[in-house]
Amino acid sequence: MEAWAGVKVVALVGGVGGARFLQGLRALGADVTAVVNTGDDMWMHGLRITPDLDTCMYTLGGGIDVERGWGREDESWTVKEELAAYGAEPTWFGLGDRDIATHLVRTRMLRAGYPLSAVTEALCDRWKPGVKLLPMSDDRVETHVVVELDGETKAIHFQEWWVKHRAGVPAQSFAFVGAETATAGPGVLDAIGEADAVILAPSNPVVSVGTILNVPGVRDALRKTEAGVVGLSPIIGGKPLRGMADACLDAIGVETSAEAVGRLYGSRKCSEDGILDAWLVHTGDRADVPGVAVRAVPLLMSDVDTTAQMARDALELAGVEVD
Amino acid sequence: MEAWAGVKVVALVGGVGGARFLQGLRALGADVTAVVNTGDDMWMHGLRITPDLDTCMYTLGGGIDVERGWGREDESWTVKEELAAYGAEPTWFGLGDRDIATHLVRTRMLRAGYPLSAVTEALCDRWKPGVKLLPMSDDRVETHVVVELDGETKAIHFQEWWVKHRAGVPAQSFAFVGAETATAGPGVLDAIGEADAVILAPSNPVVSVGTILNVPGVRDALRKTEAGVVGLSPIIGGKPLRGMADACLDAIGVETSAEAVGRLYGSRKCSEDGILDAWLVHTGDRADVPGVAVRAVPLLMSDVDTTAQMARDALELAGVEVD
Repeated sequence: MEAWAGVKVVALVGGVGGARFLQGLRALGADVTAVVNTGDDMWMHGLRITPDLDTCMYTLGGGIDVERGWGREDESWTVKEELAAYGAEPTWFGLGDRDIATHLVRTRMLRAGYPLSAVTEALCDRWKPGVKLLPMSDDRVETHVVVELDGETKAIHFQEWWVKHRAGVPAQSFAFVGAETATAGPGVLDAIGEADAVILAPSNPVVSVGTILNVPGVRDALRKTEAGVVGLSPIIGGKPLRGMADACLDAIGVETSAEAVGRLYGSRKCSEDGILDAWLVHTGDRADVPGVAVRAVPLLMSDVDTTAQMARDALELAGVEVD
Repeated sequence: MEAWAGVKVVALVGGVGGARFLQGLRALGADVTAVVNTGDDMWMHGLRITPDLDTCMYTLGGGIDVERGWGREDESWTVKEELAAYGAEPTWFGLGDRDIATHLVRTRMLRAGYPLSAVTEALCDRWKPGVKLLPMSDDRVETHVVVELDGETKAIHFQEWWVKHRAGVPAQSFAFVGAETATAGPGVLDAIGEADAVILAPSNPVVSVGTILNVPGVRDALRKTEAGVVGLSPIIGGKPLRGMADACLDAIGVETSAEAVGRLYGSRKCSEDGILDAWLVHTGDRADVPGVAVRAVPLLMSDVDTTAQMARDALELAGVEVD
């Protein structure tokens, strides 16, 4: 076990990138609490789907389809085909058979009155992710995207934009429905307050980390914690590491660069609502973010060892002292 | 097309036996309305399951697993295995992957406020059963069984008794929960009133046909209709044709014989709550049912032709006149 054992780390994460980063953190033996974006959650075929929580749970629990990055390995699609045979919409979302069991258990518990945090804990009894997964909120918060479709301006669910349209329809803006009145999930603000380090994973800064930051109290907790707050750039050489973060950044008028994203998060010291003490960019990238320590290290999460080194760099930059 | 085309027939049916009998009726070209038992329905893993409606729909729509008699052909069981991996109860019910799509569509529609009759119609858009399938009621009516289990007297859902315990625990009595305040499904009483013939399929007389008879208004409609009412015995040579009808008859103190079941249904003419004009028993069986015309014909539904002949015999005995 490394020297990081017992160090309390909170990571704000989205789906695929966040899940991979958590693998690196876990490899250090740190005591990791992940605050997971739930803005992508939606009802589909009567099931409550929580894509980012599931991606983290399956990835850390060894059940993920590694190639695809989401959903279960050895997946089959019988239910999906049958739903299509009934003409049941939507048909564009990949609900696999194994995956559906997770959604059934979740939906049943939610309908029985359990909050999402309790449901997540129950599901993790099986997957044993080795990391505490906390939904950013137990309340329903959903990211919607304002787009022009068929000559009409309308707000569609983020998943519809992301998965059905592959973010190919320009987003005019994002609406974080329910965010204003949401409460941070149980343990979220306390974990940030008690952490030795807080890390913004290299997840989508607008619709993953950004959504978490919109939950009332989270930004404030980040500004107040005694822990160092370090972010990892999801933009490498002016391009998103994965996903379509550039389409999201475009929509909010932010350049797709490590520097621009660093400035979007901003400095705890020098700006009124900034949250960063330090910002990690990829080797060769540069960023000038006033009031924020910037360091360039390799940020490609090509395997767990490389990712663990990124996590180590982040913890060091956060000022965590180990023996 | 046979001479029976356009003849309005109402059949009261349960699951496997009822579905097969409907195949015979349909083969005659009659205008068939099936009033289907919904007392076996239950919530399972957050899904609303309607076993008899599905058995009828799949059988008539060509989607049934013929060997098993219930569920979909070419079925897979991935979701079931995954639910078990979560420790989600119950594990004793066969929820197949294809089948689950049906339950998802149904559950979503029910939760959106559609009555079961409308849901059934929507599902039949796909299956085109060629027979109008009407739930006996849109209200929740569930057959429970009073048993002695682990030294305690308790009421368990019929499915638990039937599927989990294989009716191996003696039933002390049946409780038709919700029946007293239920209303017959849309079209049920009218169909009986306007029928040229009403047939009690060779289904379980206690928990299939018997459950339908418990829905307020149904028995009365059967007694009042101008159509002849004919029943087919599900008991052949003192044994149930299939299923475990003897265990059900035992519980209500009725002998497992064609005669006893005929008397249980009773005569429209000679008893206060009887419903039969005629009673078909299997060749070689005999039955003396006061006020009821009894005829012995082959009652083994070995194939559709044989079953169609049973249906023909029943319609003739009901007094339907054809050219």
